[in-house]
This record gives sequence, C-alpha cells and structure tokens, in this order.
Amino acid sequence: MVTTVGIAGMGLMGGSLARRLARTGATVLGWNHNTHPYAAAEEEGIICMPSLDSLARSSPGVLILCMPLRAIPEALSVLRGGLDREATTLTDIGSVKGAVRRQIDVEGLGECYVGAHPMAGNEYSGFGASDPALYDDALWALTVGAHTQYRRFLDVARLITEQVGDRLITLDDETHDRAAALISHMPHAVSTAMINQLTADSQRDIAVALAAGSWRDMTRVALTDPERTRAMIEEDSGNVEGLLREISARLLAFADALHRGDQELISQFFLQGQPYRDFKADTGRHGHISERLLQLDPARWQQTLLESARRGEQVVGFRSSSQVAVQRRSDF
Amino acid sequence: MVTTVGIAGMGLMGGSLARRLARTGATVLGWNHNTHPYAAAEEEGIICMPSLDSLARSSPGVLILCMPLRAIPEALSVLRGGLDREATTLTDIGSVKGAVRRQIDVEGLGECYVGAHPMAGNEYSGFGASDPALYDDALWALTVGAHTQYRRFLDVARLITEQVGDRLITLDDETHDRAAALISHMPHAVSTAMINQLTADSQRDIAVALAAGSWRDMTRVALTDPERTRAMIEEDSGNVEGLLREISARLLAFADALHRGDQELISQFFLQGQPYRDFKADTGRHGHISERLLQLDPARWQQTLLESARRGEQVVGFRSSSQVAVQRRSDF
Repeated sequence: MVTTVGIAGMGLMGGSLARRLARTGATVLGWNHNTHPYAAAEEEGIICMPSLDSLARSSPGVLILCMPLRAIPEALSVLRGGLDREATTLTDIGSVKGAVRRQIDVEGLGECYVGAHPMAGNEYSGFGASDPALYDDALWALTVGAHTQYRRFLDVARLITEQVGDRLITLDDETHDRAAALISHMPHAVSTAMINQLTADSQRDIAVALAAGSWRDMTRVALTDPERTRAMIEEDSGNVEGLLREISARLLAFADALHRGDQELISQFFLQGQPYRDFKADTGRHGHISERLLQLDPARWQQTLLESARRGEQVVGFRSSSQVAVQRRSDF
Repeated sequence: MVTTVGIAGMGLMGGSLARRLARTGATVLGWNHNTHPYAAAEEEGIICMPSLDSLARSSPGVLILCMPLRAIPEALSVLRGGLDREATTLTDIGSVKGAVRRQIDVEGLGECYVGAHPMAGNEYSGFGASDPALYDDALWALTVGAHTQYRRFLDVARLITEQVGDRLITLDDETHDRAAALISHMPHAVSTAMINQLTADSQRDIAVALAAGSWRDMTRVALTDPERTRAMIEEDSGNVEGLLREISARLLAFADALHRGDQELISQFFLQGQPYRDFKADTGRHGHISERLLQLDPARWQQTLLESARRGEQVVGFRSSSQVAVQRRSDF
C-alpha cells in the first residue's frame, strides 16, 4: 500500500482525488500553481506544499500530475531535477495519453511513468467544485508502453483498486486515445456544435423555451469550460478529426435518405445501433457480473492485460502481485 | 374549469397525464387501443371506456389525443361521427404540429381543435412506465391557426395552467415544428448516429468501457424506442433534414480546422456558443423570474401571444378570460 501520495494540481479532478485519498488514511501531499485552495485543502487533511519541487523532494510513493496538459512541460522541467526516480512512480490523469508520454520521455522520466485516465468528471472546475464522490465506482484506463516496469504498474494499479476503490483496464496509448476520442472527445465537439447552432438560430428564444431533457442531456458537456474541452480535443486532434468526418457523413447520408423518403435507409439508420441498445438494456436488467482470476506472467503481462480489456474485462483487485481479479460486465 | 377530460391513448405520456389529472379531482375518461392498462388505470381513478366512440360521445370538455401520429387518422375517422363539436375541444400532445392540424382539417374537426405539445417525456414507453410527475413544471407549446377560436384556446390553456399546473407558450405550427426540430428532433438523430458509430467500431468493447457521463448523456435519447423516434423525425423530416445538413457542415468545418491546425477557426468554434453558456449559467445562478400581466384583445390575441413567446415569456396563469400572467425567465 502506498502511504504517501503526491497530488500536483488541485482543481476539480486533483482536488477530488486528494480529498478521497486523505479520507482513506493515506498521507496526501498537495501542490497547486496558486495557493487559493490551500486553506480548504488543509481542512480536509491534505498537506499543502510550497512548491512542486518540495513536493517531489518529499519522495511520495506515487506522484500524480493533475494539471492541464499544457502545464505539464513546465512541471516536468521541475521534476527532472527533484524527483527521486527510484522512490517515486509518476502518473497523471489526463484524458489523452500519447502526448503526455512523449513529453515524459523527452524529460527522461519514462522509466518511472505509468499513464492513467479516470472516467470521471463533470462540467465544473476548481477545488471549490471538488467532491471525493466524483470517483465513486469509476473505471480508470492505465496506459503502458514497451518499457513500462511491472512494479510501476503495480504501484498505480493497487493505489486505484485498493485505496481509491475503483476499477481499471490496461491499454497502450494509441488504443486509449482512439477509444477516448470515440466515446468522449468527439461527442464533446458534437455537443459544442449543437449549442453553436442554437446560438446562431434566429428563433433561439422560442427554441430554448421548448428545450427538455433530450436537449439538456445532449448539450451538458458543451457547458464545460471551453478552454478545457479545446485542449482535450486538440491534444487528440487526429483521432477526433477522423471521427468527426465519420459522424458528419452519417448525418448527411441520413439527411439524404429523409430527402428521398428512402424507407430502407431510414430503417437501417434506426436499426444499426440496436446491439448497443440491447447491451444497455441487458446491463440495466441483470447487472450480471462474472469474476475470474488472471495470472500475470512477467514476460507478457502487458499483452495479457490488453487482451483482457478487449474481452470487456475490468481489473477490480489484486490477489497477489502476480494475480488479478477481473470482472466481465455484460456483452456488447 | 374543465371537469371532464378525455384521454385517448394511455401510454407513457397519456397515462401520466391521465393519472395527474385524476389526482386533481377532474373526471378522467380514458381509452386505449388495447385494454392492457385498464386495471391499473382504474386503480388510479381513471374511468376506462370500451371504445373511442363511447369516449367521444361522453362529451368531455377537452379530449386529448395521446397516440402516435400514425394512429391519428383512424382515431379521427371515429371522432368525425361521434364528437360533439360544440361541447368538446379537441387537442393532442404530439411533438409535431403541422401534420396533425392538416389531418384534423381534412376530417372537418378544425373548428374545435388547438394543438398542444408538452416538453416532457423520457426514453421509456407504456402505461407501466407512466408517472404523474413526468409533467412537473413542464412547459407546453400550444399551436393555433388562423381560424382557431379563442374559447377553444382558453379551454386547453386553462386546463394546462390550472389543472395540470404547468406553463405554456403559444405558437403557430411552422414556428413550433422548426424549433422542435432544432431542440429535439435533430438532436435525437445525432444521438442515434453516435450509437451507430460506436456499434460499427472494431474497438467498441474498449470504447464502451471508457464511457462516462458525457457519452451516457449524449446517447440517452438514442435508447428511446427507435420506432417512436423514427416517427417523430419523419413527421418533421423537412426541418430535420435541413438542420442535419447544417450540423454536419459545422462538424466538417471543425474537422478541417483541426486538420490545418487553424487556431482562429478552432477558437471561433469554442466561442460561438458562449451566449448559450452564459444564459445557462445565469439561469442557474439567479433563477431570476419577472412576472407581468398581458391583456388579450379578441382581434389580435394570437399575435400578442406569439410576440410574447418571442420575447421569452411563458404563460403561467389566467387572471380573467382576457388577462394572462406571463413570466420572463432570463435572457438568451
């Protein structure tokens, strides 16, 4: 068990994580680029550090970068000097993984790094909006590269399963970034385009009065700080661009089908996603979860974990340092 | 006050409305195309009728068609014979208004008709899923045509404000159907395209594991019975088609901007919807509501009400048969 965790960046996500870990009895050392959250954080049992360098030099077992990607290069230039690479495993919680690893490799910190991305968040910002419950029952994606050490993976994976109390899957950066673009970054752009379209409409006052649940849900993420969304999308722009071209083509094809009254194409449009509807209905109805143990071999632990993720399995805990319990949740 | 209300069609929306009205002490006469919900409905105090004809011949003050649009022609062919046009005001709760009025005019029932569309609903179906609270604090759009009688409007408008306890705005059919396409029908198609895209993706198992709040919210409406969504979209297909072409063009332009790394266009994309973000933040913060009275002149009541809706005002009650209280909720 990691007893000292460093949190660099105490906004919504880092603040919520720091508060959650502090409640489990871990020693949490926090740092933020300004000291605004320090008084409130200290009331929550977080030890606030005067600088990122002093945080690094305290040698936490795991140091988690919880800042925007654009702030990471400057943070790494500090860590390069002060981080004890032997004592501390470095991770981050950014929503794009390839770009972070490239920066970390450039700074020569790759040997102690494991990527992480918790599937959690909301449209608010800042420590004032933080909430330990944000991480309730969350799934994390851990990302590993060819040179990732197993003991570093274990440090982060056990912190997540045993101390944060969450689940995880293990991916390579490319698989992660493409999947995150599909399930999150591209939808953020679509949601933003929808509020743009409403804003540009001459009848927008009437339209907004008619807005009900469907509009509210589909545009909630467009209310996120647009700079945060922009950064997330630009960091994964190749994947997002391709997916936007795909969704745009789908919408145009459907518009054409409506124009021609093409009943067969219209039917297909509404039937294509049926496997997803069935999957969701199944998840809701049975909540069926099957659990099994997975043995990790030092020579091919990465491949074993990636194959497990592709089967729809999620790691829920460690039986030993080489045996993980995985759960499979419904078929899609 | 309308003491007897007829509900023709007791699925999710009609069932919820019937139950809500029964609780306020109104006499509610219900009919459904099959008798499956009758036992449960009668327990809720709804008087279930053996046929639509017998419901019409009971001369309710207001008769509300709560069936899918495709079932309306057959219902109207029954009502044409049995409806007492003098005693009963006819309305419906469909999400598309122009198409309903055309059918009603064809059957010669236009003189007693006012269109209605409550901004309420969810992704479930049937009386079993009904819930009187579905109509809590809902806004209704009433639609009127050149020949709509003021007393018919009053019948429906007072039923909504005084008995259902909701708010309303008054529109013409065209304005309604375009605004509903923008705020609801087009977004339903976009949500459907998103689950289609996920379903077609070779990495869908991993992507769905990473799905968090943004994906859940943006695809909730795609889980609606696709036949219901299809009907809604096809009934308003001209408007939906045009809006899909617009949103598709916005997404393509943004994909191009990402491809070129065009910082100015990318900035614009994220700034364009800011008035909507400000409007939502303002609504959340102050909940500022100003109320005033509107005098309705028999010669131009329709225009007065439409102008009021364009100003962002909503009717919350009647002071007399010619004076309405309207509330203005925040600026957009």
